[in-house]
Amino acid sequence: MAGPSPGAGMPLDTLPTPCLLLDEARLRANVARMRAHLTGLGVAFRPHLKTAKSLEVARIAMTSPEGPAMVSTLREAEYFAAGGVRDMIYGVGLAPAKLARVAAIRAGGADLAVILDSVEQAEAVAAHARASGDALPVLIEVDADGHRSGVAPGDRDTLVAIGRRLVDGGASLRGVLLHAGDSYSLRDPAALAAAAEAERVAAVTAAGALREAGLPCPVVSVGSTPTARFARDLAGVTEVRAGVFMFGDLVQAGVGAVAVEDIALSVLATVIGHQRAKGWIVVDAGWMALSRDRGTAKQPVDQGYGVVCDRAGRPYRDLLVADANQEHGILALRPGSAADLPDLPVGAQVRILPNHACATGAQHDRYHVLDGAGRVAATWPRINGW
Amino acid sequence: MAGPSPGAGMPLDTLPTPCLLLDEARLRANVARMRAHLTGLGVAFRPHLKTAKSLEVARIAMTSPEGPAMVSTLREAEYFAAGGVRDMIYGVGLAPAKLARVAAIRAGGADLAVILDSVEQAEAVAAHARASGDALPVLIEVDADGHRSGVAPGDRDTLVAIGRRLVDGGASLRGVLLHAGDSYSLRDPAALAAAAEAERVAAVTAAGALREAGLPCPVVSVGSTPTARFARDLAGVTEVRAGVFMFGDLVQAGVGAVAVEDIALSVLATVIGHQRAKGWIVVDAGWMALSRDRGTAKQPVDQGYGVVCDRAGRPYRDLLVADANQEHGILALRPGSAADLPDLPVGAQVRILPNHACATGAQHDRYHVLDGAGRVAATWPRINGW
Repeated sequence: MAGPSPGAGMPLDTLPTPCLLLDEARLRANVARMRAHLTGLGVAFRPHLKTAKSLEVARIAMTSPEGPAMVSTLREAEYFAAGGVRDMIYGVGLAPAKLARVAAIRAGGADLAVILDSVEQAEAVAAHARASGDALPVLIEVDADGHRSGVAPGDRDTLVAIGRRLVDGGASLRGVLLHAGDSYSLRDPAALAAAAEAERVAAVTAAGALREAGLPCPVVSVGSTPTARFARDLAGVTEVRAGVFMFGDLVQAGVGAVAVEDIALSVLATVIGHQRAKGWIVVDAGWMALSRDRGTAKQPVDQGYGVVCDRAGRPYRDLLVADANQEHGILALRPGSAADLPDLPVGAQVRILPNHACATGAQHDRYHVLDGAGRVAATWPRINGW
Repeated sequence: MAGPSPGAGMPLDTLPTPCLLLDEARLRANVARMRAHLTGLGVAFRPHLKTAKSLEVARIAMTSPEGPAMVSTLREAEYFAAGGVRDMIYGVGLAPAKLARVAAIRAGGADLAVILDSVEQAEAVAAHARASGDALPVLIEVDADGHRSGVAPGDRDTLVAIGRRLVDGGASLRGVLLHAGDSYSLRDPAALAAAAEAERVAAVTAAGALREAGLPCPVVSVGSTPTARFARDLAGVTEVRAGVFMFGDLVQAGVGAVAVEDIALSVLATVIGHQRAKGWIVVDAGWMALSRDRGTAKQPVDQGYGVVCDRAGRPYRDLLVADANQEHGILALRPGSAADLPDLPVGAQVRILPNHACATGAQHDRYHVLDGAGRVAATWPRINGW
């Protein structure tokens, strides 16, 4: 569990602010917990790398340096393929114009699969497979809960038509893929377990429709951080995907999928002023550093633009980023709080826990990695873009 | 008005999506309009480069290749200084730990000024000035409207104490700076004109306090896109700052500070699927490409995550990005609309006008610049980070 440069940690006040901190021990513990849970359920784990976008983090999360892994952009696929990851699924419905880039990544040796949910996309993939001689592997996206894309799990005709078009056209039908995105809006453990079970049933139903039509369906892939965390039985599922759990965030804490004390990601900020009559402390982390994500605004406990902690990562009682401008964060006590505003002079550093790790991470190009002593042991680059 | 590579434009379908488009003619027209307005009011124009973060855009916006200009991060200051900009203000209250970086930028030949609003910061700057022999120029931040930082304009004691500490300590007191950020929440032209006048009065009051105490105040700097646009008289003001007006966005259109047809920035996206029973079209631009900014949610006309246009930039009637996941945008008609959903098959491209140009731009690392024929004439890099 040692950081990459044990003993060489630099103090936080050597960092320019705002910047992104990653607690390596919390990251490793979050990964170990998810892995143990999924191993117990008898399924493979395919971490989603869209949150971290970092090869160093991926190597901690993946079960092998070659994967499996899930990506949300072809830029991620290219970056992780260059870093040795071989087994990837590009988890956004394929635009046919992207086939050339997918082919180039596959030609480099990575087994990159794609997803789609229409016969027209299947035809484009089949035409590509025939023209290139590469039997591109495809998972049919199935709609777990009405959240966004995917064929309805009971729409046997469309599932079979897509599968048939792929197989007859020379592509490879690898299976079905679902994402229970609506689970992010839940909080009750029983409801979350029910969402996980509904995702499983939808997956097994869709896989059954393909198999009954004589089509292959070796992979049955489900996942989201909440349903991965609350699944009790995954019979018929072959793999689970999750990403945000690695870092955790306030939205997932509101869901109950992570504990606040397990959140591994924070933004380091410096106090730059006060409006004492209003009870405001102004810091140099605004929405550019924190992201515009206000996911907790829809939850029972609204955490503003983030929960404010001391430099050791301990939350100050009731202190939030109450508002944010581009490069200004306004710290204030939660409305109605009886707490005292901490004494934080100009130049003091604070750490801010994010609403949404995917969104906050994307505002930065590197992680400053904390060792067990809360010092900066390494800098890990991360990518953005498409 | 010709693009940088006239006649060499590439069609939009050669671009990987999602990506950022910039209509150069609209940008130039927005700049010309603001310049003419401010020239008519007899004040200098200091464009804020925090929206564009691009040297090519800065050179169009600035009155000379050397500036003046405003920046929101020291990363911007370094980047623009390397590109030849000489007259800059770093417009976020100074954390004393940043003085070394400010000094390095100044040592490279750029006249970079800083802002602050407390005696403790003034003491840190004075100590730096004495130690370095560089009379660092400082503007005192004054609070125009209770929006965030700044000394109250009527708080003569604090203003004079800060000014005295700077001057006596060897720094250079350059003036006062205000930002009427609350103007973003207005819509009525008379209220906007009143906000601009209130910003002017606050600036002149604070400048007067310094001058009456025998302190210098050569620069009286105000600005925000709405107050710049609606100011009718700027007597006593020496310069105006504004940034987002260059590109425009839906929030500024809701304020009335720009017209929707003048918005120069859009995100190009590709259709990747449909949920026909729900009236949804799914595209490959989610909140990662659009940003999480939902600024129009607080305005009378909520534009979702953006207004959807055809490839020529003409809005489809009532078609919005109704919801967004990380890499998925869900297009749907405005609630209650009588319009027909346009026929947009998988692979079709659309353009999405952003809520907030600063936030959407920050999700990207380049502009694909459109010429008058709507073709891609150039690629301009942009920076992010701190």
